[in-house]
Amino acid sequence: MNTRDTLATELNVLANFNPVVPESYKDAKVVMLGNLHPSVQMAVIKQIPVRPKLVALDTMNFWMDNTLPELMEVIAKIDVITINDEEARQLSGEYSLVKAAQKIQEMGPKYVVIKKGEHGALLFNDDNVFFAPALPLEEVFDPTGAGDTFAGGFIGHIARTGDISFENMKRAVIAGSNLASFCVEKFGTERMENLTFKEIQERLLQFKLLTQFDIELS
Amino acid sequence: MNTRDTLATELNVLANFNPVVPESYKDAKVVMLGNLHPSVQMAVIKQIPVRPKLVALDTMNFWMDNTLPELMEVIAKIDVITINDEEARQLSGEYSLVKAAQKIQEMGPKYVVIKKGEHGALLFNDDNVFFAPALPLEEVFDPTGAGDTFAGGFIGHIARTGDISFENMKRAVIAGSNLASFCVEKFGTERMENLTFKEIQERLLQFKLLTQFDIELS
Repeated sequence: MNTRDTLATELNVLANFNPVVPESYKDAKVVMLGNLHPSVQMAVIKQIPVRPKLVALDTMNFWMDNTLPELMEVIAKIDVITINDEEARQLSGEYSLVKAAQKIQEMGPKYVVIKKGEHGALLFNDDNVFFAPALPLEEVFDPTGAGDTFAGGFIGHIARTGDISFENMKRAVIAGSNLASFCVEKFGTERMENLTFKEIQERLLQFKLLTQFDIELS
Repeated sequence: MNTRDTLATELNVLANFNPVVPESYKDAKVVMLGNLHPSVQMAVIKQIPVRPKLVALDTMNFWMDNTLPELMEVIAKIDVITINDEEARQLSGEYSLVKAAQKIQEMGPKYVVIKKGEHGALLFNDDNVFFAPALPLEEVFDPTGAGDTFAGGFIGHIARTGDISFENMKRAVIAGSNLASFCVEKFGTERMENLTFKEIQERLLQFKLLTQFDIELS
Protein backbone atom coordinates (compact mmCIF):
# COMPACT_ATOMS: atom_id res chain seq x y z
CA MET A 1 0.00 0.00 0.00
CA ASN A 2 1.19 3.54 -0.57
CA THR A 3 1.27 6.13 2.20
CA ARG A 4 -2.13 7.51 1.27
CA ASP A 5 -3.71 4.03 1.43
CA THR A 6 -2.00 3.32 4.73
CA LEU A 7 -3.32 6.56 6.14
CA ALA A 8 -6.82 5.84 4.85
CA THR A 9 -6.74 2.41 6.49
CA GLU A 10 -5.52 3.83 9.77
CA LEU A 11 -8.22 6.48 9.70
CA ASN A 12 -10.84 3.79 9.13
CA VAL A 13 -9.57 1.81 12.08
CA LEU A 14 -9.62 4.93 14.23
CA ALA A 15 -13.06 5.94 13.01
CA ASN A 16 -14.46 2.44 13.57
CA PHE A 17 -13.56 2.34 17.23
CA ASN A 18 -17.02 2.33 18.75
CA PRO A 19 -16.98 3.78 22.25
CA VAL A 20 -19.84 2.67 24.49
CA VAL A 21 -20.78 5.15 27.18
CA PRO A 22 -21.76 3.17 30.31
CA GLU A 23 -25.31 3.75 31.62
CA SER A 24 -23.97 5.27 34.82
CA TYR A 25 -22.12 7.97 32.83
CA LYS A 26 -25.05 9.01 30.66
CA ASP A 27 -26.20 11.74 33.04
CA ALA A 28 -22.74 13.36 33.07
CA LYS A 29 -23.00 17.11 33.60
CA VAL A 30 -19.56 17.69 32.13
CA VAL A 31 -18.06 15.78 29.20
CA MET A 32 -14.47 15.90 27.98
CA LEU A 33 -13.92 14.51 24.48
CA GLY A 34 -10.31 13.40 24.26
CA ASN A 35 -8.14 13.88 21.19
CA LEU A 36 -9.51 11.09 18.93
CA HIS A 37 -11.16 10.79 15.50
CA PRO A 38 -14.01 13.33 15.36
CA SER A 39 -16.45 10.51 14.42
CA VAL A 40 -15.59 8.84 17.71
CA GLN A 41 -16.11 12.12 19.55
CA MET A 42 -19.47 12.56 17.81
CA ALA A 43 -20.48 8.99 18.74
CA VAL A 44 -19.95 9.89 22.41
CA ILE A 45 -22.01 13.08 22.14
CA LYS A 46 -24.89 11.15 20.54
CA GLN A 47 -25.01 8.63 23.38
CA ILE A 48 -25.66 11.30 26.03
CA PRO A 49 -29.46 11.73 26.04
CA VAL A 50 -29.62 15.08 27.86
CA ARG A 51 -27.28 17.87 26.71
CA PRO A 52 -24.55 18.14 29.37
CA LYS A 53 -23.93 21.48 31.08
CA LEU A 54 -20.53 21.66 29.39
CA VAL A 55 -18.86 19.69 26.61
CA ALA A 56 -15.14 20.22 26.04
CA LEU A 57 -13.12 18.91 23.14
CA ASP A 58 -9.43 18.37 22.62
CA THR A 59 -8.18 17.92 19.06
CA MET A 60 -5.07 18.39 16.95
CA ASN A 61 -3.66 19.22 13.50
CA PHE A 62 -3.87 15.55 12.37
CA TRP A 63 -7.70 15.69 12.40
CA MET A 64 -7.69 19.11 10.74
CA ASP A 65 -5.53 17.71 7.94
CA ASN A 66 -7.44 14.48 7.39
CA THR A 67 -10.99 14.73 8.73
CA LEU A 68 -11.86 18.43 8.64
CA PRO A 69 -15.57 18.09 7.67
CA GLU A 70 -16.25 15.63 10.51
CA LEU A 71 -14.21 17.76 12.91
CA MET A 72 -16.19 20.90 12.00
CA GLU A 73 -19.44 19.06 12.75
CA VAL A 74 -18.24 18.13 16.23
CA ILE A 75 -16.80 21.60 16.87
CA ALA A 76 -20.24 23.07 16.14
CA LYS A 77 -21.72 21.06 19.03
CA ILE A 78 -19.30 21.77 21.86
CA ASP A 79 -18.69 24.53 24.42
CA VAL A 80 -14.93 24.49 24.99
CA ILE A 81 -12.14 23.63 22.58
CA THR A 82 -8.53 23.12 23.68
CA ILE A 83 -5.87 23.30 20.95
CA ASN A 84 -2.35 24.62 20.64
CA ASP A 85 -1.35 27.91 19.02
CA GLU A 86 -0.35 26.45 15.64
CA GLU A 87 -3.58 24.46 15.47
CA ALA A 88 -5.63 27.56 16.30
CA ARG A 89 -3.91 29.32 13.40
CA GLN A 90 -4.51 26.37 11.06
CA LEU A 91 -8.18 26.00 12.01
CA SER A 92 -8.94 29.71 11.68
CA GLY A 93 -6.53 30.84 8.98
CA GLU A 94 -5.57 33.74 11.25
CA TYR A 95 -2.06 34.36 12.61
CA SER A 96 -3.15 36.60 15.48
CA LEU A 97 -4.39 34.35 18.30
CA VAL A 98 -6.96 37.00 19.24
CA LYS A 99 -8.46 36.87 15.74
CA ALA A 100 -8.09 33.07 15.61
CA ALA A 101 -10.07 32.72 18.85
CA GLN A 102 -12.80 35.01 17.48
CA LYS A 103 -13.17 32.91 14.33
CA ILE A 104 -13.19 29.64 16.26
CA GLN A 105 -15.93 30.97 18.54
CA GLU A 106 -18.00 31.56 15.42
CA MET A 107 -17.60 27.86 14.58
CA GLY A 108 -19.35 26.83 17.80
CA PRO A 109 -17.39 26.78 21.06
CA LYS A 110 -17.99 29.82 23.26
CA TYR A 111 -14.74 29.13 25.10
CA VAL A 112 -11.45 28.72 23.28
CA VAL A 113 -8.38 27.55 25.18
CA ILE A 114 -5.13 27.99 23.26
CA LYS A 115 -2.21 26.05 24.73
CA LYS A 116 1.25 27.51 24.14
CA GLY A 117 3.34 24.83 25.87
CA GLU A 118 6.12 26.40 27.95
CA HIS A 119 4.58 29.81 27.19
CA GLY A 120 1.31 29.09 29.01
CA ALA A 121 -2.31 29.04 27.90
CA LEU A 122 -4.91 31.60 26.84
CA LEU A 123 -8.64 31.41 27.52
CA PHE A 124 -11.00 33.40 25.29
CA ASN A 125 -14.74 34.01 25.69
CA ASP A 126 -16.39 36.92 23.86
CA ASP A 127 -14.30 39.96 24.73
CA ASN A 128 -12.79 38.30 27.80
CA VAL A 129 -9.31 36.93 27.74
CA PHE A 130 -7.31 35.26 30.49
CA PHE A 131 -3.72 34.11 30.47
CA ALA A 132 -2.24 31.35 32.61
CA PRO A 133 1.55 31.07 32.49
CA ALA A 134 3.38 27.80 32.52
CA LEU A 135 5.39 27.52 35.72
CA PRO A 136 9.06 28.20 34.92
CA LEU A 137 10.79 24.92 35.78
CA GLU A 138 14.46 24.14 36.34
CA GLU A 139 14.12 21.10 34.14
CA VAL A 140 11.48 19.78 31.75
CA PHE A 141 12.18 16.07 31.71
CA ASP A 142 9.48 14.85 29.31
CA PRO A 143 6.72 17.05 27.84
CA THR A 144 4.71 14.04 26.65
CA GLY A 145 1.17 14.13 28.01
CA ALA A 146 1.29 17.74 29.20
CA GLY A 147 -1.62 18.71 26.93
CA ASP A 148 -3.77 15.79 28.06
CA THR A 149 -2.92 16.48 31.70
CA PHE A 150 -3.88 20.12 31.19
CA ALA A 151 -7.24 19.03 29.72
CA GLY A 152 -7.81 16.62 32.61
CA GLY A 153 -7.03 19.24 35.24
CA PHE A 154 -9.19 21.79 33.44
CA ILE A 155 -12.28 19.62 33.16
CA GLY A 156 -11.71 18.07 36.59
CA HIS A 157 -11.92 21.51 38.18
CA ILE A 158 -15.16 22.28 36.28
CA ALA A 159 -16.68 18.89 37.20
CA ARG A 160 -15.75 19.25 40.87
CA THR A 161 -17.17 22.77 41.21
CA GLY A 162 -20.06 22.53 38.72
CA ASP A 163 -19.52 26.22 37.93
CA ILE A 164 -19.12 27.22 34.29
CA SER A 165 -18.73 30.98 34.79
CA PHE A 166 -15.76 32.72 33.16
CA GLU A 167 -14.27 33.37 36.61
CA ASN A 168 -14.30 29.67 37.37
CA MET A 169 -13.11 28.77 33.89
CA LYS A 170 -10.03 30.90 34.70
CA ARG A 171 -9.43 28.78 37.80
CA ALA A 172 -9.85 25.67 35.65
CA VAL A 173 -7.12 26.86 33.28
CA ILE A 174 -4.84 27.42 36.29
CA ALA A 175 -5.74 23.97 37.66
CA GLY A 176 -4.83 22.44 34.29
CA SER A 177 -1.55 24.37 34.05
CA ASN A 178 -0.75 23.32 37.61
CA LEU A 179 -1.17 19.59 36.87
CA ALA A 180 0.67 19.85 33.55
CA SER A 181 3.66 21.41 35.35
CA PHE A 182 4.01 18.19 37.37
CA CYS A 183 3.49 15.92 34.36
CA VAL A 184 6.63 17.16 32.58
CA GLU A 185 8.90 16.65 35.61
CA LYS A 186 9.24 12.90 35.11
CA PHE A 187 8.88 10.31 32.37
CA GLY A 188 5.38 9.39 31.17
CA THR A 189 2.80 9.20 33.96
CA GLU A 190 5.39 8.62 36.69
CA ARG A 191 5.08 12.00 38.41
CA MET A 192 1.28 11.94 38.32
CA GLU A 193 1.05 8.53 39.99
CA ASN A 194 2.69 9.76 43.18
CA LEU A 195 1.33 13.29 43.20
CA THR A 196 -0.30 14.40 46.46
CA PHE A 197 -3.08 16.93 46.99
CA LYS A 198 -0.71 18.88 49.25
CA GLU A 199 1.82 19.25 46.42
CA ILE A 200 -0.91 20.51 44.09
CA GLN A 201 -2.05 23.08 46.66
CA GLU A 202 1.49 24.26 47.29
CA ARG A 203 2.14 24.75 43.59
CA LEU A 204 -1.12 26.66 43.29
CA LEU A 205 0.42 29.18 45.67
CA GLN A 206 3.44 29.39 43.34
CA PHE A 207 1.11 30.18 40.43
CA LYS A 208 -0.41 32.98 42.49
CA LEU A 209 3.00 34.40 43.41
CA LEU A 210 4.10 34.12 39.80
CA THR A 211 1.30 36.20 38.34
CA GLN A 212 -0.38 38.34 40.96
CA PHE A 213 0.53 41.99 41.23
CA ASP A 214 -0.94 45.00 42.89
CA ILE A 215 -0.94 48.26 41.02
CA GLU A 216 -2.75 51.52 41.52
CA LEU A 217 -5.39 52.43 38.95
CA SER A 218 -6.15 56.13 39.09
CA MET B 1 38.24 45.26 3.85
CA ASN B 2 36.94 41.82 4.73
CA THR B 3 33.95 41.28 6.99
CA ARG B 4 36.11 40.82 10.07
CA ASP B 5 37.92 44.10 9.44
CA THR B 6 34.64 45.90 8.81
CA LEU B 7 33.24 44.57 12.04
CA ALA B 8 36.39 45.55 13.94
CA THR B 9 36.14 49.09 12.54
CA GLU B 10 32.48 49.36 13.42
CA LEU B 11 33.18 48.13 16.94
CA ASN B 12 35.90 50.76 17.31
CA VAL B 13 33.54 53.49 16.19
CA LEU B 14 30.89 52.27 18.62
CA ALA B 15 33.43 51.94 21.45
CA ASN B 16 34.83 55.40 20.79
CA PHE B 17 31.52 57.16 21.21
CA ASN B 18 32.23 59.11 24.36
CA PRO B 19 29.02 59.88 26.25
CA VAL B 20 29.19 62.88 28.56
CA VAL B 21 26.80 62.75 31.49
CA PRO B 22 25.54 66.31 32.15
CA GLU B 23 26.26 67.69 35.64
CA SER B 24 22.56 67.84 36.43
CA TYR B 25 22.24 64.07 35.82
CA LYS B 26 25.16 63.03 38.00
CA ASP B 27 23.05 62.59 41.12
CA ALA B 28 20.66 60.21 39.34
CA LYS B 29 19.18 57.68 41.75
CA VAL B 30 18.27 55.32 38.92
CA VAL B 31 20.36 54.71 35.81
CA MET B 32 19.33 52.81 32.69
CA LEU B 33 22.20 51.79 30.41
CA GLY B 34 20.78 51.36 26.92
CA ASN B 35 21.84 48.63 24.54
CA LEU B 36 25.24 49.99 23.37
CA HIS B 37 28.89 48.90 23.41
CA PRO B 38 29.74 47.78 26.97
CA SER B 39 32.66 50.25 27.03
CA VAL B 40 30.17 53.06 26.49
CA GLN B 41 27.97 51.67 29.25
CA MET B 42 31.00 51.48 31.56
CA ALA B 43 31.97 55.08 30.70
CA VAL B 44 28.56 56.22 31.93
CA ILE B 45 28.85 54.25 35.18
CA LYS B 46 32.26 55.81 35.85
CA GLN B 47 30.92 59.35 35.46
CA ILE B 48 28.37 58.95 38.25
CA PRO B 49 30.26 59.85 41.45
CA VAL B 50 27.85 58.30 43.99
CA ARG B 51 26.60 54.75 43.33
CA PRO B 52 22.97 55.10 42.20
CA LYS B 53 20.24 53.22 44.06
CA LEU B 54 19.66 51.07 40.99
CA VAL B 55 21.55 50.54 37.75
CA ALA B 56 19.81 48.63 34.98
CA LEU B 57 21.40 47.40 31.77
CA ASP B 58 19.99 46.33 28.43
CA THR B 59 22.22 44.35 26.10
CA MET B 60 22.04 41.82 23.27
CA ASN B 61 23.69 38.85 21.56
CA PHE B 62 25.85 41.16 19.37
CA TRP B 63 27.85 42.30 22.41
CA MET B 64 28.04 38.75 23.76
CA ASP B 65 29.50 37.60 20.43
CA ASN B 66 31.99 40.43 19.99
CA THR B 67 32.79 42.10 23.30
CA LEU B 68 32.14 39.48 25.97
CA PRO B 69 35.02 40.39 28.37
CA GLU B 70 33.97 44.08 28.44
CA LEU B 71 30.32 43.07 28.78
CA MET B 72 31.08 40.80 31.75
CA GLU B 73 32.85 43.69 33.49
CA VAL B 74 29.79 45.90 33.15
CA ILE B 75 27.40 43.10 34.14
CA ALA B 76 29.35 42.67 37.38
CA LYS B 77 28.56 46.28 38.34
CA ILE B 78 24.82 46.49 37.73
CA ASP B 79 21.61 45.55 39.57
CA VAL B 80 19.14 44.68 36.81
CA ILE B 81 19.79 43.12 33.41
CA THR B 82 17.15 42.94 30.67
CA ILE B 83 17.79 40.46 27.85
CA ASN B 84 15.71 38.13 25.72
CA ASP B 85 15.35 34.38 26.22
CA GLU B 86 17.91 33.36 23.60
CA GLU B 87 20.43 35.84 24.98
CA ALA B 88 19.88 34.56 28.52
CA ARG B 89 20.65 31.07 27.23
CA GLN B 90 23.74 32.27 25.36
CA LEU B 91 25.10 34.26 28.30
CA SER B 92 24.56 31.44 30.82
CA GLY B 93 25.02 28.33 28.72
CA GLU B 94 21.78 27.01 30.25
CA TYR B 95 18.64 26.13 28.29
CA SER B 96 16.28 26.33 31.26
CA LEU B 97 15.47 29.98 31.90
CA VAL B 98 15.29 29.29 35.63
CA LYS B 99 18.85 27.97 35.63
CA ALA B 100 19.97 30.72 33.23
CA ALA B 101 18.64 33.39 35.60
CA GLN B 102 20.44 31.76 38.54
CA LYS B 103 23.76 31.77 36.69
CA ILE B 104 23.32 35.36 35.52
CA GLN B 105 22.59 36.48 39.08
CA GLU B 106 25.96 34.98 40.05
CA MET B 107 27.59 37.28 37.45
CA GLY B 108 26.36 40.38 39.27
CA PRO B 109 22.78 41.57 38.72
CA LYS B 110 20.42 40.62 41.55
CA TYR B 111 17.46 41.09 39.23
CA VAL B 112 17.23 39.34 35.88
CA VAL B 113 14.47 40.29 33.44
CA ILE B 114 14.07 37.86 30.56
CA LYS B 115 11.98 39.21 27.68
CA LYS B 116 10.11 36.63 25.60
CA GLY B 117 8.50 38.97 23.05
CA GLU B 118 4.87 38.01 22.39
CA HIS B 119 5.19 35.45 25.22
CA GLY B 120 5.77 38.04 27.93
CA ALA B 121 8.60 38.65 30.39
CA LEU B 122 10.00 36.93 33.47
CA LEU B 123 11.55 38.66 36.48
CA PHE B 124 13.91 36.67 38.70
CA ASN B 125 15.42 37.62 42.08
CA ASP B 126 16.81 34.90 44.35
CA ASP B 127 14.01 32.36 44.68
CA ASN B 128 11.35 34.83 43.56
CA VAL B 129 9.95 34.72 40.07
CA PHE B 130 7.27 36.88 38.47
CA PHE B 131 5.73 36.58 35.06
CA ALA B 132 4.15 39.41 33.05
CA PRO B 133 2.30 38.34 29.91
CA ALA B 134 2.35 40.30 26.71
CA LEU B 135 -1.13 41.60 26.00
CA PRO B 136 -2.72 39.46 23.26
CA LEU B 137 -3.25 41.90 20.40
CA GLU B 138 -5.41 41.64 17.30
CA GLU B 139 -2.54 42.89 15.21
CA VAL B 140 1.18 43.46 15.78
CA PHE B 141 2.03 46.07 13.20
CA ASP B 142 5.75 46.59 13.89
CA PRO B 143 7.66 44.98 16.78
CA THR B 144 10.66 47.31 16.34
CA GLY B 145 11.46 49.13 19.56
CA ALA B 146 9.30 46.95 21.80
CA GLY B 147 12.31 45.90 23.91
CA ASP B 148 13.54 49.47 24.34
CA THR B 149 10.04 50.64 25.19
CA PHE B 150 9.78 47.87 27.76
CA ALA B 151 13.08 48.99 29.32
CA GLY B 152 11.90 52.61 29.36
CA GLY B 153 8.60 51.77 31.01
CA PHE B 154 10.34 49.52 33.51
CA ILE B 155 12.93 52.04 34.65
CA GLY B 156 10.45 54.91 34.43
CA HIS B 157 8.23 53.20 36.97
CA ILE B 158 11.19 52.61 39.31
CA ALA B 159 12.39 56.22 38.94
CA ARG B 160 8.93 57.64 39.56
CA THR B 161 8.29 55.56 42.67
CA GLY B 162 11.85 55.33 44.04
CA ASP B 163 10.99 51.88 45.37
CA ILE B 164 13.30 48.98 44.46
CA SER B 165 11.48 46.22 46.37
CA PHE B 166 10.57 43.02 44.50
CA GLU B 167 6.88 43.92 44.76
CA ASN B 168 7.50 47.22 43.02
CA MET B 169 9.86 45.62 40.50
CA LYS B 170 6.88 43.41 39.51
CA ARG B 171 4.83 46.55 38.86
CA ALA B 172 7.73 47.94 36.83
CA VAL B 173 7.70 44.82 34.61
CA ILE B 174 3.96 45.29 34.08
CA ALA B 175 4.50 49.01 33.32
CA GLY B 176 7.12 48.05 30.73
CA SER B 177 4.91 45.38 29.16
CA ASN B 178 2.05 47.86 29.07
CA LEU B 179 4.05 50.48 27.14
CA ALA B 180 5.56 47.87 24.80
CA SER B 181 2.05 46.69 23.90
CA PHE B 182 1.33 50.17 22.49
CA CYS B 183 4.70 50.46 20.71
CA VAL B 184 3.98 47.51 18.39
CA GLU B 185 0.57 48.82 17.29
CA LYS B 186 1.99 51.34 14.82
CA PHE B 187 5.15 51.98 12.86
CA GLY B 188 8.27 53.16 14.68
CA THR B 189 7.56 55.67 17.46
CA GLU B 190 4.21 56.77 15.98
CA ARG B 191 1.96 55.19 18.61
CA MET B 192 4.10 56.42 21.51
CA GLU B 193 4.03 60.03 20.35
CA ASN B 194 0.27 60.29 20.73
CA LEU B 195 -0.16 58.01 23.71
CA THR B 196 -2.19 59.45 26.61
CA PHE B 197 -1.92 58.67 30.31
CA LYS B 198 -5.59 57.63 30.23
CA GLU B 199 -4.87 54.99 27.58
CA ILE B 200 -2.01 53.62 29.68
CA GLN B 201 -4.21 53.41 32.77
CA GLU B 202 -6.99 51.69 30.84
CA ARG B 203 -4.62 49.09 29.45
CA LEU B 204 -3.24 48.50 32.94
CA LEU B 205 -6.73 47.36 33.85
CA GLN B 206 -6.61 44.95 30.91
CA PHE B 207 -3.37 43.51 32.26
CA LYS B 208 -5.05 42.97 35.59
CA LEU B 209 -8.05 41.26 34.00
CA LEU B 210 -5.74 39.15 31.86
CA THR B 211 -3.77 37.65 34.73
CA GLN B 212 -5.59 37.98 38.03
CA PHE B 213 -7.48 35.01 39.38
CA ASP B 214 -8.95 34.07 42.69
CA ILE B 215 -8.54 30.52 43.86
CA GLU B 216 -9.01 28.85 47.22
CA LEU B 217 -5.89 27.63 48.98
CA SER B 218 -6.80 25.10 51.64
